[in-house]
Amino acid sequence: MSVPVITLITDFGNLDGYVGAMKGAILSIAPQARIVDITHEIPHGRVSKASFVLESILPFYPEGTVHLVVVDPGVGSRRRPLAVGSGGMYFVGPDNGVLEPAYRADEDFICHELKEKRYRLETVSTTFHGRDLFAPAAAHLAAGVGISGLGPPVGQPVRATPGRRKIISGERIVGRVMHADRFGNLITDITARELEILGKQRDRLKVCVCGREIDGVSDYYSQGADDELLALVGSTGRLEIAINLASALDRLGPVSEDAEVTVSRR
Amino acid sequence: MSVPVITLITDFGNLDGYVGAMKGAILSIAPQARIVDITHEIPHGRVSKASFVLESILPFYPEGTVHLVVVDPGVGSRRRPLAVGSGGMYFVGPDNGVLEPAYRADEDFICHELKEKRYRLETVSTTFHGRDLFAPAAAHLAAGVGISGLGPPVGQPVRATPGRRKIISGERIVGRVMHADRFGNLITDITARELEILGKQRDRLKVCVCGREIDGVSDYYSQGADDELLALVGSTGRLEIAINLASALDRLGPVSEDAEVTVSRR
Amino acid sequence: MSVPVITLITDFGNLDGYVGAMKGAILSIAPQARIVDITHEIPHGRVSKASFVLESILPFYPEGTVHLVVVDPGVGSRRRPLAVGSGGMYFVGPDNGVLEPAYRADEDFICHELKEKRYRLETVSTTFHGRDLFAPAAAHLAAGVGISGLGPPVGQPVRATPGRRKIISGERIVGRVMHADRFGNLITDITARELEILGKQRDRLKVCVCGREIDGVSDYYSQGADDELLALVGSTGRLEIAINLASALDRLGPVSEDAEVTVSRR
Repeated sequence: MSVPVITLITDFGNLDGYVGAMKGAILSIAPQARIVDITHEIPHGRVSKASFVLESILPFYPEGTVHLVVVDPGVGSRRRPLAVGSGGMYFVGPDNGVLEPAYRADEDFICHELKEKRYRLETVSTTFHGRDLFAPAAAHLAAGVGISGLGPPVGQPVRATPGRRKIISGERIVGRVMHADRFGNLITDITARELEILGKQRDRLKVCVCGREIDGVSDYYSQGADDELLALVGSTGRLEIAINLASALDRLGPVSEDAEVTVSRR
Repeated sequence: MSVPVITLITDFGNLDGYVGAMKGAILSIAPQARIVDITHEIPHGRVSKASFVLESILPFYPEGTVHLVVVDPGVGSRRRPLAVGSGGMYFVGPDNGVLEPAYRADEDFICHELKEKRYRLETVSTTFHGRDLFAPAAAHLAAGVGISGLGPPVGQPVRATPGRRKIISGERIVGRVMHADRFGNLITDITARELEILGKQRDRLKVCVCGREIDGVSDYYSQGADDELLALVGSTGRLEIAINLASALDRLGPVSEDAEVTVSRR
Repeated sequence: MSVPVITLITDFGNLDGYVGAMKGAILSIAPQARIVDITHEIPHGRVSKASFVLESILPFYPEGTVHLVVVDPGVGSRRRPLAVGSGGMYFVGPDNGVLEPAYRADEDFICHELKEKRYRLETVSTTFHGRDLFAPAAAHLAAGVGISGLGPPVGQPVRATPGRRKIISGERIVGRVMHADRFGNLITDITARELEILGKQRDRLKVCVCGREIDGVSDYYSQGADDELLALVGSTGRLEIAINLASALDRLGPVSEDAEVTVSRR
């Protein structure tokens, strides 16, 4: 028998007992569940960062995994609490766009509002739905409760606000930095497939970001000369701006975390 | 059969191998144990912070859980190493008051000193009882060893030093901030039940802290105007001072982490 | 049946989805594996720090444990990916010396290059071998695949560059600080056994570091007077420089993290 996996993405940090209380609520309902911490260090209330992390791990989890995402600046207000079934997995979190990768994973996703009282904790606080409402729902899903039992279907969940549109032509691609990772690598919304529109030879491309020009797209970090900005296709299949063993974010400044990035032929 | 859960609260941080060595000691004795990290970021030696976190997670864990708490500034000295049975759970840690929530959970708690050599590692260092003595005891409890087998009973464990006494009258409650959480929310020792003494209408209350007056007690964070101090009853059932999506701790300064808080009628 | 344990040591941090993706890759292959986070906070690319942490946890893990260590500044270049069998355990990581404790644990270790395609993910990126290559190998080992099935044997893996040689005579021992831990304790390469060469009475010894003299070697931290440097044999069996409830690293400055340490008789 397979072990049900529940992954956790939150902005609760690792200093307090918040995540610990959620884990207790899960294990009280589904003692066999395998709880996997993804990160609890999403910046406070940054829904789009949580979506980015969720999307980056999805392809690597087995069917039946429950992804519990609690970045919930509107906790206690009228935003709906949701469970989503999509692409053979489950997703639990608030209706604020944080589950966008679930909606994109499969057009025929199903979505239910967490209204059924017997799948919540007995007392639901107004400030900590992660513990009282989302964790129990994830645990019940992992324990085999059908998603439609959790509450009524929701037709139109809130979708993430799309950012600036990418411009893609045969001449150039204009995208932007989506995320700076722990190493200061700047990960863009430009995919490897889009780069191929400009040609298969990556050394013939030119990348512009924050007024700097980078010649060619490298294959891995240690190809870069010491202390030199490089562009490469990273592990999420997207164009990254990096410096080998140093931080592109530090070099280009905080503005680079949301900077425009242009790729063209040299 | 249920899986025995062992929770971990320490001040060992996540940079070194200390927690990893404890986990190895546990899994060598109780391979089936479910280890749950609560936090390893308790400030160095801050016994009261560890107690606070322990208390906040207790209601959410299943019967039989073993809570292992190692914040132990006196390691190697004569302070006794303890195992406590209380409220259907087990607690393991040093006799310095850190297990106070266990003593409060059930007046008829039982307490034993970890003296039995066969339930320790073969060699016990003078500086790392978390690994050599506490983790093995927790693992043996999880594996089914009776608590009385761990060593002789202890009649009077060290109790936490009570802080300033709360003042509660029909006119006002004077308490204090106990903890600032990751978000900079200031959690007080004033409970929801105590607020009711002043009246059921929370919008008729007034909260004073650090020279600021807050009118009314809100229900959730996003009720606050941008950038405005608010008071609410948080997820631990206590009055909190907060700012929606910002830090009350930053606003009021470090002194607020131990500030006096007065609630009265408007 | 025993549960296979996989420990993780990386420099990926806890902000992004990198470690989460590795855990997904592991659980997709070996759903029963027990994943144990040791640390993900190794400073970026610091191979010797990762080795130090690995060595500190080894004695406490059960036979059959798989230790997965991904600190891999050369990812994508020609450095070989390895699996090592040594002392009844398995080790998986890059061929850059990070697995040195495995080579030292048992002279007759065996070592294989991870070349067998069916034990990798289908697509292997050039920048994230932790997810695409190392995690799958560790999972297959935990699931019972023989190490020799992972690829051809490797005769001479890269060994860690030895640091300055220790000087040991009947008069004095000259070693160095290897690691500053979370508490600012400075852990040296001088062992308890080496101290015995100078005599069994530790209070007759004198320790010099960064121009300071410390009289005697204590037994535990709280023996130190407030705010006073002390020397003691720590939990890894090595001489440490510490201050009770404060940081020796902060006191002696960053230079102390690699300082020379001399022990002699008073």
